[in-house]
Amino acid sequence: MIKFNVKEPDAKIHQDLYDKINNLAKPKGALGRLEELALQIGEIQQTLNPQLNNPYNILFGADHGIADEGVSFSPKEVTWQQMFSFLRGSSGINFLCRQYDFSLLVVDAGVDYDFPKDLGIIDMKVAHGTHNFLQEAAMSRAEFDLAIERGARVVEDLHVKGCNIVSFGEMGIGNTSASAMWMHYLTDIPLESCVGAGSGLDSLGISKKLDVLMRSKKNYEKNMCSHLLGQENILEILRYFGGFEMVMAVGGMLKAAELNMIIIVDGFIMSACILAAYKLYPSVLKYAIFGHQGDEVGHKLLLDTMGVSPILQLNLRLGEGTGAVCAFPIIDSAVRMIREMGSFDSAAITKYY
Amino acid sequence: MIKFNVKEPDAKIHQDLYDKINNLAKPKGALGRLEELALQIGEIQQTLNPQLNNPYNILFGADHGIADEGVSFSPKEVTWQQMFSFLRGSSGINFLCRQYDFSLLVVDAGVDYDFPKDLGIIDMKVAHGTHNFLQEAAMSRAEFDLAIERGARVVEDLHVKGCNIVSFGEMGIGNTSASAMWMHYLTDIPLESCVGAGSGLDSLGISKKLDVLMRSKKNYEKNMCSHLLGQENILEILRYFGGFEMVMAVGGMLKAAELNMIIIVDGFIMSACILAAYKLYPSVLKYAIFGHQGDEVGHKLLLDTMGVSPILQLNLRLGEGTGAVCAFPIIDSAVRMIREMGSFDSAAITKYY
Repeated sequence: MIKFNVKEPDAKIHQDLYDKINNLAKPKGALGRLEELALQIGEIQQTLNPQLNNPYNILFGADHGIADEGVSFSPKEVTWQQMFSFLRGSSGINFLCRQYDFSLLVVDAGVDYDFPKDLGIIDMKVAHGTHNFLQEAAMSRAEFDLAIERGARVVEDLHVKGCNIVSFGEMGIGNTSASAMWMHYLTDIPLESCVGAGSGLDSLGISKKLDVLMRSKKNYEKNMCSHLLGQENILEILRYFGGFEMVMAVGGMLKAAELNMIIIVDGFIMSACILAAYKLYPSVLKYAIFGHQGDEVGHKLLLDTMGVSPILQLNLRLGEGTGAVCAFPIIDSAVRMIREMGSFDSAAITKYY
Repeated sequence: MIKFNVKEPDAKIHQDLYDKINNLAKPKGALGRLEELALQIGEIQQTLNPQLNNPYNILFGADHGIADEGVSFSPKEVTWQQMFSFLRGSSGINFLCRQYDFSLLVVDAGVDYDFPKDLGIIDMKVAHGTHNFLQEAAMSRAEFDLAIERGARVVEDLHVKGCNIVSFGEMGIGNTSASAMWMHYLTDIPLESCVGAGSGLDSLGISKKLDVLMRSKKNYEKNMCSHLLGQENILEILRYFGGFEMVMAVGGMLKAAELNMIIIVDGFIMSACILAAYKLYPSVLKYAIFGHQGDEVGHKLLLDTMGVSPILQLNLRLGEGTGAVCAFPIIDSAVRMIREMGSFDSAAITKYY
């Protein structure tokens, strides 16, 4: 895997940011979460006057071999059908991108469908979907490396265009199964606590999904390279169960952190991706803002392992980046607060603390 | 008190709204809270294509006699100082109004200060602050009626201007004390569960505040008209403890419901106001969307008595309507969803339920 240069933001500016926020004309702490966000963003951008420029939502799409085992409520062809829908502007993520002036980048990371060229889909296809991880590794190590590299390249291109805040979304029937496996192996939380309804399974469907994943775990552990340790072991888990859209998101997140960009994390699947990025480069978390905590069983547990709590809880479970983009206005408010609010002096308000 | 004609929206349209939302190209229920909001707004507006027009935040300001007892962390002059700040555009509510194209109406409901005319403050002043309810009723019945009427008139004017969504905010040092008294008497929740930190009291300050309110309760019950029942008793509680900004908000909310406008409710104080409105006209709740649940002890209890849960939890405790306006983009998203998203048919997605 290519190397990333992910460093924590310089903490020297923290006190100046804190003082500026506390001198805004309001009771100390009265803007709660907005104040925390302004601090984080000021540190990332190393300025007392942060700004959000040219926001993008990158939507990585890919198919999963494990979908053949009936682990999802949705049929597999929905992946490619939705890719068209994103281009037409009729999906959930589209009205949100229009609402907040987000540019939408639809990336084919590995959909099992041949899209016409010149349609507007960014062609980063590594393969026509992954292998079925019930029987074998989802992808080769070479494919994994390629996906990481391509995810990084997509983000690098946005940075060149002046984007400094990027949200990550996905489309991939079967990817809550892949995410559950990543979560299980990266956190040691029991598999049954990582498996949920996805796009709409009932309890029978969930127990069937769990059974497939339990058997996948057994097969994996029978053949796994037990001599792998540390980072090599993490990479092995990621390639064995991951989807191309997930691995590409990991590469994109790490590159975004390297470039001091703000990362907005969507729901369960993208949380599994930032968890993977965090296990490889812990400092990546300093650049991450968690948009939404959904219903998916396990999402809260996953977030807890990183000690983070998302901005919104709206019971969304659509993916595509919807939970991340929905949280954008709150992030925007935080930046407007620190840029636009008057201080006690300038507003001629009695300072009472 | 003037009468209001508050009726529940006609429920006949419910099924059509429900069907339209379920046929949008997404797993059933996958847009969670946005779907609920779209249903509510569609019912209020009696249309499958709702829209939000000309949003306003009305900020009622007034002073409270009880502030003389030291129940607030903030000095009393902050009320009038902040009124100037709202006009200058440097307060918390201002950057939020700019962010979402809200017009801000700053209304003097009863501030203890004489503002220059032609400054832009809407003069609805009933008196220079209320009396101290530790010793006597905060306002007379005539003042109460006037405040209700003026609140209604402010909202009526906005309706004429084409506004169909209005958020209510307040500025009034001492008003968490008044709100705690309303909450206690209107819900029967013990007073100690209704009293919190307001703009920043420590535990010693809170216990002093509780002591003042306990003594106020005792004095009130010694002299109260025990023969009053039902609605007359509610009105008596409201006028005895209320602030002019709070009573005006009650009048405004009831008029907004009468005119089929969407009401966005801010934090603890405005929640106490919609509670009062609800006790007088239960149907008002159908028009209310709760923006934010704050830290103030008692706010969650108060919301629970109405069976409602706010959109956001951002630990805001500024008032001014900030918690309401912060929630606007989510409400806007709900409307965009039902207006702009494609259906399974139009998007050519396999319908899988």
